[in-house]
Amino acid sequence: MLARVLPYAKNLAQEIVRPGDTVVDATCGNGHDTKFLSELTGPDGHVLSFDIQSEAIENARELCSPAVNIEFILDSHANVDDYLSGRPVKAGMFNLGYLPKGDKTITTEYRSTIRAIEKLFRSMVPGGRIIIVVYHGHPEGKLEKEALTSALAEWPQKESQILEYRFINQKNDAPYILCIEKNSKK
Amino acid sequence: MLARVLPYAKNLAQEIVRPGDTVVDATCGNGHDTKFLSELTGPDGHVLSFDIQSEAIENARELCSPAVNIEFILDSHANVDDYLSGRPVKAGMFNLGYLPKGDKTITTEYRSTIRAIEKLFRSMVPGGRIIIVVYHGHPEGKLEKEALTSALAEWPQKESQILEYRFINQKNDAPYILCIEKNSKK
Repeated sequence: MLARVLPYAKNLAQEIVRPGDTVVDATCGNGHDTKFLSELTGPDGHVLSFDIQSEAIENARELCSPAVNIEFILDSHANVDDYLSGRPVKAGMFNLGYLPKGDKTITTEYRSTIRAIEKLFRSMVPGGRIIIVVYHGHPEGKLEKEALTSALAEWPQKESQILEYRFINQKNDAPYILCIEKNSKK
Repeated sequence: MLARVLPYAKNLAQEIVRPGDTVVDATCGNGHDTKFLSELTGPDGHVLSFDIQSEAIENARELCSPAVNIEFILDSHANVDDYLSGRPVKAGMFNLGYLPKGDKTITTEYRSTIRAIEKLFRSMVPGGRIIIVVYHGHPEGKLEKEALTSALAEWPQKESQILEYRFINQKNDAPYILCIEKNSKK
C-alpha cells in the first residue's frame, strides 16, 4: 500500500538517521517525533527538540522519559544555530501548524519557519534531510504553505532536491510532506 | 538518496507486480516500460502495450524481442477495455507527452488520457496501481497536466488514493509522478 503521509515522514528519517547522529525536532509539540528520533539516534546520539510553549515541552519530557539523549529547548527553532555548537546535523523534522489539543492561536509562522529551515540546512551533512509535514487547514497555515513553497522552489538544484509527497484527492486540507535533501558533494 | 522520478515510477510498479499478472503499458513509446513490465510478469504474465504510432511499436518490438508475454496494440489506450477480455489488471503505466526522438506534434491528449485511466481503473484489482509520469514542458502537456489534476482531485477517497511525487525545485518543467492506487475492499 502507498505509504500515508505520517508514516512516510518517519520513513524518510529512518532511512538516513543512524545511532550517534545529531538531529533536530524543530517542533517538539507533544514529543512523538522527539521520542522517535531519540530511539533512532540511541544513547550516543543527540536530539535537540524545540518548542516555544512550555506546556509542549513538559508533555514531551514526560513522554520521552527516561531517554538521556534529548535536549529540550524552550526557544524558537529560528534560533537553532545558537544551540548546535557546530555539530553537523543529519536530519530535522517539522510539523507545522499548532500544538495538537493546545492553543490553536499559537502556530508556526512562515518567516521563522523559513529562517529555521535555512539555518538547519547550512548545518546539515551532505545526504541529510529536513522533513516537513505541512498542515494548512488554518489561515496562517495557508499563508505558510504558500510562502514556503515559493521560497523552496527557488532553492538551487545543485545544492538540494526538494520532494513534495502529497495525496491530491483528500478532502479537508490534508497534510502533506516537503522533504529537502542536501546533495552529496560530487 | 531520495528516489528520482523515473526510478520511483518503476519502483511503484515493482512493489506490486508479480509473475503471472496482467499489466498495461498505455504508452509504449520506445518500449522501455513494456520490457520492464514483461520481465516483472514473466512467461505466465500478460503485457498489453498500446501506441498509436507504428514506428513506436516497431522499435519496442525490437527492444523486447524475444519476450513472448507482450501483446503490442496499434490503437489508442482510450480503447483499452476492448482488449482486456475481462482480465483483471494489476498495474498500468503512462508516460505522457510525445514519443522521445519522434514527431513532437503527436502527443497524448487529455481527453483520451483521462478516458483510458478511468477504464483501466475499473478493470483493476484492489491494490492495483496506475502510474503516470507527467511531462508538461510542451503546450498540450500543460493542458493535460491541468485537466488530469483537476479530474483526479475529485476522485473519491473511498475508492482510491492518488499520490503526487514531485521535485519542486527543478527547472524546465521536470516530469513528475501521479500514482492512483485502488483501495482494498474493507
